[in-house]
Amino acid sequence: MPSEIRVDSPDQERFLRELLDAGLLIDGGTPGVYGHGAAFERVRAAFAALVTAEARAAGAVSLTFPPIIARDKLETAGYVGNFPHLAGTIFGFDGSETEARTLRERAAAHEDWSELQSQTDLMLLPAGCYPVYPAVAARGPLDPGGVLVDIGAAWVFRHEPSLDPARRQSFRMHELVRIGEAEAVAAWRADWAQRGVRMLRGLGLDAELENASDPFFGRAGRLLAASQSAEDLKWELVVPIAGPEPTACASFNYHLDRFGETWGLRLADGTTAHTACIGFGQERVVAALLRTHGLEPERWPDEIRARLDAALSADPEPAGVTWLDTDATTNAATPAC
Amino acid sequence: MPSEIRVDSPDQERFLRELLDAGLLIDGGTPGVYGHGAAFERVRAAFAALVTAEARAAGAVSLTFPPIIARDKLETAGYVGNFPHLAGTIFGFDGSETEARTLRERAAAHEDWSELQSQTDLMLLPAGCYPVYPAVAARGPLDPGGVLVDIGAAWVFRHEPSLDPARRQSFRMHELVRIGEAEAVAAWRADWAQRGVRMLRGLGLDAELENASDPFFGRAGRLLAASQSAEDLKWELVVPIAGPEPTACASFNYHLDRFGETWGLRLADGTTAHTACIGFGQERVVAALLRTHGLEPERWPDEIRARLDAALSADPEPAGVTWLDTDATTNAATPAC
Repeated sequence: MPSEIRVDSPDQERFLRELLDAGLLIDGGTPGVYGHGAAFERVRAAFAALVTAEARAAGAVSLTFPPIIARDKLETAGYVGNFPHLAGTIFGFDGSETEARTLRERAAAHEDWSELQSQTDLMLLPAGCYPVYPAVAARGPLDPGGVLVDIGAAWVFRHEPSLDPARRQSFRMHELVRIGEAEAVAAWRADWAQRGVRMLRGLGLDAELENASDPFFGRAGRLLAASQSAEDLKWELVVPIAGPEPTACASFNYHLDRFGETWGLRLADGTTAHTACIGFGQERVVAALLRTHGLEPERWPDEIRARLDAALSADPEPAGVTWLDTDATTNAATPAC
Repeated sequence: MPSEIRVDSPDQERFLRELLDAGLLIDGGTPGVYGHGAAFERVRAAFAALVTAEARAAGAVSLTFPPIIARDKLETAGYVGNFPHLAGTIFGFDGSETEARTLRERAAAHEDWSELQSQTDLMLLPAGCYPVYPAVAARGPLDPGGVLVDIGAAWVFRHEPSLDPARRQSFRMHELVRIGEAEAVAAWRADWAQRGVRMLRGLGLDAELENASDPFFGRAGRLLAASQSAEDLKWELVVPIAGPEPTACASFNYHLDRFGETWGLRLADGTTAHTACIGFGQERVVAALLRTHGLEPERWPDEIRARLDAALSADPEPAGVTWLDTDATTNAATPAC
């Protein structure tokens, strides 16, 4: 598939080159796929610890998911239909010895062997929250107050090759998912949006909260995006990194009862639960910090370093399964997460 | 693709059920794809810290890679040709509005939409070491002594659906990669095989080191496996988990100059470097511990818990870029890692 590489600003390409030259990123040989050096990872881990500490204090349950997901779950969730251009599907080989020989020869010559592949029942995980809803639904009705899940750093995939170092095809999204009564869930999203602003500004970033929408596909998608925006269901925390526009480093998404209905998420009284999720783009937050404070974290302002070091040294031991003690409708297009 | 699900022993299926019932694993809706609860993750993180502490003491460089890799790298490395049955290829959508509508309808009905997908230039990462060789080669000739890389926990993919909880399609492999002079690399593998035995036995596991071979595809593959075994290039550390045979929980692989030639890895004197890698299957190690000591880690023997707790609390801060100070050949089939 001759993927179109997104046209980026010279500023973004220059920043990418600087990150590669400094060993913060490692060239993966294709746009949007990078390894990371130790200095990059240390900052990322510190930011993850900062988010997890706040989530744990709020009673979050820790769950961890792999970077792949059963295809039928994304079909059911509507992701495939709404974001076909971003979705990654896993194909595999199920052929004969003769076909394997053909595949081997073509692969060695870097020729096309796609006809020797067939679709498996697996896809790449596009956002960390998708496996959470069916997992929680399988436990039966929620306890009063619902639940808060911290999925930590999930590797997610978006098929959008770009030379902007802040636009990856594979990256880590730190997501928190809240499932419960409508008002409690809406209030939780509003509270975390403010926490997000405080967290990023506390690290010296020029972060602003904005109304936003998901990149739904095509003409029909523009209507869905407009409706999502009008209903105020997606907020993004944008920070200047590189390029003419600030970059979304976190999103705060309210799904109303859409996923509750889809997955049969029930409250203790039998009514449908509401859901919200928030996600911090870990690589984007680190890129914003590097752009703002310079490429050498050991020379960042003392206050910023102290805040990150403190988070990292506060051993973020995963919390046990804890259910929240708090209190308790419409329908929209399925959001990206 | 109607994937064949590997037939497993009743013992393995029972153990899987116990892990799910205890909330240690979370059902992903398809064999070999599981989420993990906090208790499972805590043990996994402790074991990772144990390995990383030893690697750091030996001067390892920390590098981190995403769960996907450019397709041409796996073609070049020979993985696609040797392990077509295990490889996962990423397909995507590049069609029109009309095609997107068809895709959307079929996906919503869980019908076949594979004809609307085309191959991208990306694959799933099959072992953590693959991105390391080209990354190190890009730096130019190695310093004397070569290099040791700790890639931490990489998410890897193998297309082999199974009801054995120790056989995942997506799992974390903690790999260390050694690149340098032939004798130094061979000695390093032998040393780490003994460290691996000590590490697993120190956690109360009945671990045995064995000569092994990779699961090369088909009839031709059986010859490659026999040659690999005869040359003593792969050792596995096997531990009883469930099922009639013990399960490989770690492997210690010597590639001679195979990857050195493929990627142009040069020593300071211009000759080709040798390479070796070792990998601990993190989920398998945790499964072995749970099977051996019981499903409640808080009730494991004091000595085992103390060892894991100590590793976890010794903040495993990634090391800076350090090159080893230590003291240079043949050719075989490309191994799995």
